[in-house]
Amino acid sequence: MEPMLSRLMSLVVVGSIAFDAVKTPFGERERMLGGSAVHFSLAASFFTEVRVVGPVGDDFGDAEYAILRRHGVGIDDIEHVQGGKTFFWAGEYEWNLNVRRTLDTQLNVFGDFQPKLSDASRAADTLFLANIQPELQREVREQCKAARLAALDSMNYWIETERDSLLRAIADVDMLLMNDDEVRMLTEEPTLLRGARQLMDLGPRVVVVKQGEYGASLFTADSFFSLPAYPLETVLDPTGAGDSFAGGLLGYLDAEGGADDEAALRRAMTFGSAVASFWVEEFGCERAERLTRAEIDARYEAFRRMTSVEGVPTM
Amino acid sequence: MEPMLSRLMSLVVVGSIAFDAVKTPFGERERMLGGSAVHFSLAASFFTEVRVVGPVGDDFGDAEYAILRRHGVGIDDIEHVQGGKTFFWAGEYEWNLNVRRTLDTQLNVFGDFQPKLSDASRAADTLFLANIQPELQREVREQCKAARLAALDSMNYWIETERDSLLRAIADVDMLLMNDDEVRMLTEEPTLLRGARQLMDLGPRVVVVKQGEYGASLFTADSFFSLPAYPLETVLDPTGAGDSFAGGLLGYLDAEGGADDEAALRRAMTFGSAVASFWVEEFGCERAERLTRAEIDARYEAFRRMTSVEGVPTM
Repeated sequence: MEPMLSRLMSLVVVGSIAFDAVKTPFGERERMLGGSAVHFSLAASFFTEVRVVGPVGDDFGDAEYAILRRHGVGIDDIEHVQGGKTFFWAGEYEWNLNVRRTLDTQLNVFGDFQPKLSDASRAADTLFLANIQPELQREVREQCKAARLAALDSMNYWIETERDSLLRAIADVDMLLMNDDEVRMLTEEPTLLRGARQLMDLGPRVVVVKQGEYGASLFTADSFFSLPAYPLETVLDPTGAGDSFAGGLLGYLDAEGGADDEAALRRAMTFGSAVASFWVEEFGCERAERLTRAEIDARYEAFRRMTSVEGVPTM
Repeated sequence: MEPMLSRLMSLVVVGSIAFDAVKTPFGERERMLGGSAVHFSLAASFFTEVRVVGPVGDDFGDAEYAILRRHGVGIDDIEHVQGGKTFFWAGEYEWNLNVRRTLDTQLNVFGDFQPKLSDASRAADTLFLANIQPELQREVREQCKAARLAALDSMNYWIETERDSLLRAIADVDMLLMNDDEVRMLTEEPTLLRGARQLMDLGPRVVVVKQGEYGASLFTADSFFSLPAYPLETVLDPTGAGDSFAGGLLGYLDAEGGADDEAALRRAMTFGSAVASFWVEEFGCERAERLTRAEIDARYEAFRRMTSVEGVPTM
């Protein structure tokens, strides 16, 4: 079947570009490409045209640009700060990989980041505000008036330090992605259903709750959908799992032309989960290098099979 | 449609019968009927004939027997220990209900429990060994040679104190139910898939992993199935959730005539989850009092709807 290119829209992500040092019980990397905008854009590139907005320093070179280019990621809005150094993060995972400890954070050029969007980025149909300062998320949202679907991610640090600003940023988007601990922390509701409802009351039509090794859940005004994580023999490194999930989800929705339809949202959740399941099989975004859309589609079908239930039997 | 009574087999559960004092952020009960065998049998009673084996003391009276009788639970093998007191447990749940603290445990008659099974219990088709000392589980399994499906639950306490004995008990059953932390503790494997495989290597054909508010997963030699927990507005008390889940699951499988078929196992997981979702809406087993099979069936259908995904679309 001929691909329907008319469906290919455009997606822009604003977030961090980083070098990561990661140690897990199964290996380590002293310096690898990372950052939420990188994981997101590589994942989204399997579905749609995606552009990255974020800052890098002099240590970000040809090898790193080449990885993004090979995936067709638009890099014109990557801001090279002369004399600066790229954001650096070092972390360690405990044995069961659910607990992560930050060993070092050097914000470097990311500390003074003021997003500058080209006209092409401002015209994007879909916008993903990765985990950055909520005030910056609002400014970017303001610049991307054309976006028909704006989504936002955040983290416990902003809930603790800039709660009011974060609530305003959330009010401006159509879709919120957060992990379950963050939903509880932000809403102070004991069940995810109540937490998600409170967040939808602020503005977003869709709340996606990331649950790590347990999968992810989708809440809208009148529906609920949930998907387990793909059962893996080996998980080498969970770094980037959430951002690659978001990339698959929003990349698919952008290609589909929006998030207005429940069935499309569910397919998007499934594609996001499929992509993330590959991501964690190797370190950082290393698995992306030889990942194919056919592999993603096959895992999508595996997800369908492993969640399918028959109707109530007549006994 | 006429019910096919020929399919109704028989199920026996051996475990604790208790009085519980429970405090959650949403209320408390100073003394209510509880214990794993009680939660299990009430849940299973919506699907099949079920008998309870367990000890009670003089404080266990007509009111408690009446609850079991109203659900048609077979109580002939409840052993009344003259001059004894029934097992008592007091616990408290934290705000998000995932963390439970035991405040008091009085084993009483349960401390000297030596299961005595009637001929009817020994002839049961399906056997559930609720969380008791592994050596007792083995003795009961030995007495129930007719059981075509034997399942076992356990807890961290036995993993820590009687690991070898527990491994032998596991080797004797067809199905193992455990929560995810216990699977990690027992197998020392970081992923559930590897943990479940190690457990299946010991003997059980089926491993069911209970994941609390995240749902439950089913592992067999060549398949995986997972179901989220039903999204609830309010959870009053998680006590008995795992046992009511097991009761729905094994009650359904007993009525179906076994666990040989993957589709039946998935339906059983879904019925178990449906029952458990009602259980936690109220304290202890209070919701069971007015629960109907029609309500369970309706929630089964809700589970199907909220987990259904379409095939890979042609783009």
